[in-house]
Amino acid sequence: MHTAIDERGFAFAEGGVTAPLGFSAAGVSAGIKRSGRRDVALLAAEKAVPAAAVFTTSAMAAAPVVVSREHLASGRVRAAVVNAGNANACTGEQGIHDARAMAAAVAAGLGCDAADVNVASTGVIGVPLPLALVEQGIAEACESLDACGGDAAAEAIMTTDTFPKQTAMTCRVDGATYTVGGMAKGSGMIMPDMATMLAYVTTDAPLTAEACDAALRAASARTFNRITVDGDTSTNDMALLMASGAAGGEPIGPADVRFGRVAETIEAVCAELARMIVRDGEGATTFVTVRVSGARTEADADAAARSIANSPLFKTAIFGGDANWGRVVMALGKSGASVDPGRVDVSFAGIVTCERGMAVAFDEAAAAEALAADEVEVAVDLHLGDGEATVWTCDLSYEYVRINGEYRT
Amino acid sequence: MHTAIDERGFAFAEGGVTAPLGFSAAGVSAGIKRSGRRDVALLAAEKAVPAAAVFTTSAMAAAPVVVSREHLASGRVRAAVVNAGNANACTGEQGIHDARAMAAAVAAGLGCDAADVNVASTGVIGVPLPLALVEQGIAEACESLDACGGDAAAEAIMTTDTFPKQTAMTCRVDGATYTVGGMAKGSGMIMPDMATMLAYVTTDAPLTAEACDAALRAASARTFNRITVDGDTSTNDMALLMASGAAGGEPIGPADVRFGRVAETIEAVCAELARMIVRDGEGATTFVTVRVSGARTEADADAAARSIANSPLFKTAIFGGDANWGRVVMALGKSGASVDPGRVDVSFAGIVTCERGMAVAFDEAAAAEALAADEVEVAVDLHLGDGEATVWTCDLSYEYVRINGEYRT
Repeated sequence: MHTAIDERGFAFAEGGVTAPLGFSAAGVSAGIKRSGRRDVALLAAEKAVPAAAVFTTSAMAAAPVVVSREHLASGRVRAAVVNAGNANACTGEQGIHDARAMAAAVAAGLGCDAADVNVASTGVIGVPLPLALVEQGIAEACESLDACGGDAAAEAIMTTDTFPKQTAMTCRVDGATYTVGGMAKGSGMIMPDMATMLAYVTTDAPLTAEACDAALRAASARTFNRITVDGDTSTNDMALLMASGAAGGEPIGPADVRFGRVAETIEAVCAELARMIVRDGEGATTFVTVRVSGARTEADADAAARSIANSPLFKTAIFGGDANWGRVVMALGKSGASVDPGRVDVSFAGIVTCERGMAVAFDEAAAAEALAADEVEVAVDLHLGDGEATVWTCDLSYEYVRINGEYRT
Repeated sequence: MHTAIDERGFAFAEGGVTAPLGFSAAGVSAGIKRSGRRDVALLAAEKAVPAAAVFTTSAMAAAPVVVSREHLASGRVRAAVVNAGNANACTGEQGIHDARAMAAAVAAGLGCDAADVNVASTGVIGVPLPLALVEQGIAEACESLDACGGDAAAEAIMTTDTFPKQTAMTCRVDGATYTVGGMAKGSGMIMPDMATMLAYVTTDAPLTAEACDAALRAASARTFNRITVDGDTSTNDMALLMASGAAGGEPIGPADVRFGRVAETIEAVCAELARMIVRDGEGATTFVTVRVSGARTEADADAAARSIANSPLFKTAIFGGDANWGRVVMALGKSGASVDPGRVDVSFAGIVTCERGMAVAFDEAAAAEALAADEVEVAVDLHLGDGEATVWTCDLSYEYVRINGEYRT
């Protein structure tokens, strides 16, 4: 756990999703994962609280996504349940029934309305959910909810993750101290279970549902939606934000002067979780920050950065320690962003390789050494405007091919 | 060389780009490639003839693309020159000057207008063209033009290609026999030189420039633009069609009743060249046909097929011999095409793995055996309409990572 200050001055706090006041969590072993590891997580507030979520844009959205979208319409959530080991995707009507049954089991255990329960599943697809096991796990999780249960919950949502991902930060606003906590699962490389990314963010700030929605949408756009591995999108992705208000104070709507600082803290927590996801990429040997500046618009910068970060040609060059700016230029060319070939600057780890669209002599040995680091920044300046965007990704290695080629459904 | 009938009944003919009447070609060694192999190709008609071209959509288009676009405005081309070993891309004003100098050298050698010369370059980027060598090669090529020179030209345009790509087919229209020939370079896997694809198609049918344009656009959309490896796009891609009219007959415009059959033959030649490019993918072990049917529109079918064919997750599964329909469903979900999760059928090599969006029990051993073949068809039926599209691709292997990771600019 971090106890430091992040780059933007947010103070890290101990704990994860249960660090903010008013939340409890549990993670239990229900026998869905063959390994016997924890596979049912439950996160609960003391009552239904303001909440918002963002979901996968996939047209093949899984059953729990369909059900959770429906439940979120009220803008309130009492509890969120997750099972790992089975994605309940491509499971037809039965899948919808099973997702509703998960919500009902939580409602029965906590004595709340099933419509106030958020449901998620992650794991293999096309296999019916072992509902009896899941229901038993949910009952057990309801019994074992604990204000220090964040660690167990963060473990229970893992699939091929190699470490649990959680963080918490605090901010002071108008004399009040608010805490934001979070946990996530997902790996930078697309995974056998289709890289499902789940993120749960909690805060004890008294945000309204509208404020939750505004903060989560803005944060996701600049964090979870800015990590990319190969452009593949899961059927089950979701990020949820719940605001208990337990730290006190008058409700904070999106227009409130206090909103900005809380929203920034939420974004900082999401950014930390997003970076952990990229770092956990199986097969990844290098964490790559692609920063595009000087674009005509932010949308152009985003398209350009994403095109570079998603290019297998670029990603294999990083794996090979090759400051191959030609591949960056190629990716820019196909990105759809406005570019002037005569103005593009490209640098790798601070070493300028291309200026005004043309080759610059550089020290190849120094570049190879710089690219051998665990983290590399590739910066592009389009010299056309003020648009900026940063995307985080990882390299494309032999290990990636092994993992995804050898995995059997 | 083929001497058979293709699947749509076109008769293969001997020869490549010089098989049609009225064309000569040459391929010489100018010393641009370090290997000493042929690296300057010239293709010429007896006079400026109706022609059309399609170019890369990259915003970072290389100098020869800029110059050739300008020259093509007249709808006539006398000769096309290509150098391999240097892409003349990211070379600024000097690059434009050098591309014009290549056209001027051909014009001087053949006694024609420089504006009637099409120019292309392929190879490393960001390095100034060794113009003196190229000009010397062009002078030699002008001297050695030969009606049987197609083989030498097809060799001279190769970069990392492992075999020259050429084909020719004939069709009979209204008592006349027309021949269509072609040569191409490019590899199914993105290449160190950024996968530049160049294709030269010739015919002795008396097509007008408008007919050339209509035929080439339609053929490219269904052939060159339907091969994909990873979505990367070169700065130098081009396909050119020249129509000598040397086989006789009245001019054929796009509305002529004879146009359809000639256009079909042009498409068949382009399809053959496109398939050769995918087969030559370095690192590719399997040629994959992705066929999507039942889409609401052809555009939807194209988006869906392309999303599947470009998914690294899908491509590594094919490499691993895994009939992983979940990855097909994931790629459909993010494609932007209209899909109804409850109607999707997916089969691998004729083996149904997913029906109405749900898993179907299938013989895993039989599927693994079928996927071990050199060619595999993956078929998706969306059951929403009549839209159909086919995309050709290859798998993603260790060898791909090795080639693109170890290559140094």
